[in-house]
Amino acid sequence: MSRFDKFSKELLPTIESGLQSVFDHYLENNQNSVRHMLAYHMGWEGEGAGIKAQGKRIRPLLLMITADAVSTDWRKTLPFACAIEMVHNYSLIHDDIEDHSTMRRGRETVWVRWGIPQAINAGDSLYTLAYLALLGARDNFPPDIIIKSSYLLNLTCLKLTQGQYLDMRFENEDSVTLNDYWNMISGKTAALISCCCQMGAISGNSSDEVCEAFAQFGHFLGLAFQVKDDYLGLWGDLNQTGKSIESDLVSHKKTLPILYALQNNVNFRERWDAGSINKDEVKEISQLLTDDGTRKYTHSLVQELTQQAQDVLKKTGIRNDAMDALNDMTWSLVERES
Amino acid sequence: MSRFDKFSKELLPTIESGLQSVFDHYLENNQNSVRHMLAYHMGWEGEGAGIKAQGKRIRPLLLMITADAVSTDWRKTLPFACAIEMVHNYSLIHDDIEDHSTMRRGRETVWVRWGIPQAINAGDSLYTLAYLALLGARDNFPPDIIIKSSYLLNLTCLKLTQGQYLDMRFENEDSVTLNDYWNMISGKTAALISCCCQMGAISGNSSDEVCEAFAQFGHFLGLAFQVKDDYLGLWGDLNQTGKSIESDLVSHKKTLPILYALQNNVNFRERWDAGSINKDEVKEISQLLTDDGTRKYTHSLVQELTQQAQDVLKKTGIRNDAMDALNDMTWSLVERES
Repeated sequence: MSRFDKFSKELLPTIESGLQSVFDHYLENNQNSVRHMLAYHMGWEGEGAGIKAQGKRIRPLLLMITADAVSTDWRKTLPFACAIEMVHNYSLIHDDIEDHSTMRRGRETVWVRWGIPQAINAGDSLYTLAYLALLGARDNFPPDIIIKSSYLLNLTCLKLTQGQYLDMRFENEDSVTLNDYWNMISGKTAALISCCCQMGAISGNSSDEVCEAFAQFGHFLGLAFQVKDDYLGLWGDLNQTGKSIESDLVSHKKTLPILYALQNNVNFRERWDAGSINKDEVKEISQLLTDDGTRKYTHSLVQELTQQAQDVLKKTGIRNDAMDALNDMTWSLVERES
Repeated sequence: MSRFDKFSKELLPTIESGLQSVFDHYLENNQNSVRHMLAYHMGWEGEGAGIKAQGKRIRPLLLMITADAVSTDWRKTLPFACAIEMVHNYSLIHDDIEDHSTMRRGRETVWVRWGIPQAINAGDSLYTLAYLALLGARDNFPPDIIIKSSYLLNLTCLKLTQGQYLDMRFENEDSVTLNDYWNMISGKTAALISCCCQMGAISGNSSDEVCEAFAQFGHFLGLAFQVKDDYLGLWGDLNQTGKSIESDLVSHKKTLPILYALQNNVNFRERWDAGSINKDEVKEISQLLTDDGTRKYTHSLVQELTQQAQDVLKKTGIRNDAMDALNDMTWSLVERES
């Protein structure tokens, strides 16, 4: 068991009950079923509820382990951790509508179950709960840390919407560049992961330099995470990822390897421009992108970004179990198969 | 010119430029067009931009006049006022999608122009900007007032989503009671107006009693405002309201007079249950609801709620120009024709 897994095992039950407490506190005695929709999405209620439907809670784990690394009692940071996980989940509820995704963590998405109007509103409700969760930290931290954390979370949420805007725009654009791609995933994926680590550092009243180093760590980690996701979307075992039932080739998604190959492989560009790729072609085309070096390039990018994440982590000069766990986590990321 | 109008004339330019500053600060150098969508919705850009498209900015006005009433420099409360107006507008963008409304302030709604996915995301972006706007008050107020105001705004936004949930549920329910109605509009309309007045009082570091009195004032004002809206939806001059092109009878909306008449007028209930009411019938049916006392009942409710608003206002014991303006405002509300 990795050191990250050891931390996870200890922290996860606290995170789960912390999240549920926010619901109990603010949606208690609530005759309406906004609570039920959200509890379904969080993986606690309804058909298929359970660990798998809850997701990995990576973001709150990162926040609390970072807090531990800078010598804050991680239990005290639970309100921050809950806020981040709720922001993540609100954005999933809305993204699923916007991207027309019907499945999430192996279950029907909220909008499929309750319709688009109720799903938009349920997402808004969860987003609001996130801020209420954060303010729960008032009992444990001085006002300036609360305000600093709120401001960071607000800025991060703005970046999320900007990343999502770009992602939607790219769908209808032919000339998406790699630069566009990095901008998009910086907002859509990396911003919130960076926010976790930075907020963990802020909770320990760390120096600006240390906070910034953790922000950078999260940023590179987030980019690496997304590029690895893109890698798996082409060369992963679809039975293992369980995320989508089709290759990114079929869904015509402009991921990093695809954008790279569009720039460098004329044959692939011609096939891509010619229209929908069907299931039968997937094996052949992903082999094509292995042979032309796209796979190798993508893999080396994941390694490079992971290395950058580890380098900034080292720069903090902090050494303890929590730092080791963060380091472990970056490696497991590169090696994951799903 | 009423005393409220005099205040408005002085405050409105400040509010408008305050709102624009938040956009400039956080969406500047933003190559994407989320800014454009939001500036369109705020009435600043695109076809039909101008005063009429901006709405009345009633909520920030209420906040700043209340601040003035409790002897706070209203200029300092601009970040709070902007936050509230942005929350109001984010909720309109999402409500328009949820209610399938195609027109707003005489122009096409955001989702009609840019599609549902982009409109959801633009609303999320505006909601986030609201919180960023609020934190702009850090320069003018101590941290505890910032945190108190944030918490109030969060709780209010939660009530908004609960009111909207009920409103959507009522569409598909036959047995909506008057009690359900009051619950719904307490969240959907009154909560944010109450929040304006309470936050204005908080900005002056007022006692809990005074803050609570202003909260109550806004609550009754909000209810009166909504019931008057419902009144105009049946007996208003549709050319003057400009809000919708049809009577609430045609849109089958469960407003207060309609729910009251459903309880008390068997003939009306039978006609309502029989299905869609068309334009030709509107005159006759609204006359029916005049003859059976529904109109009188609705009108007296508006007066009663307005009186309650004024009574709690008096309870604060504060007397000055701003209090007179708030008082004027409640009367103009009862007498408005659009």
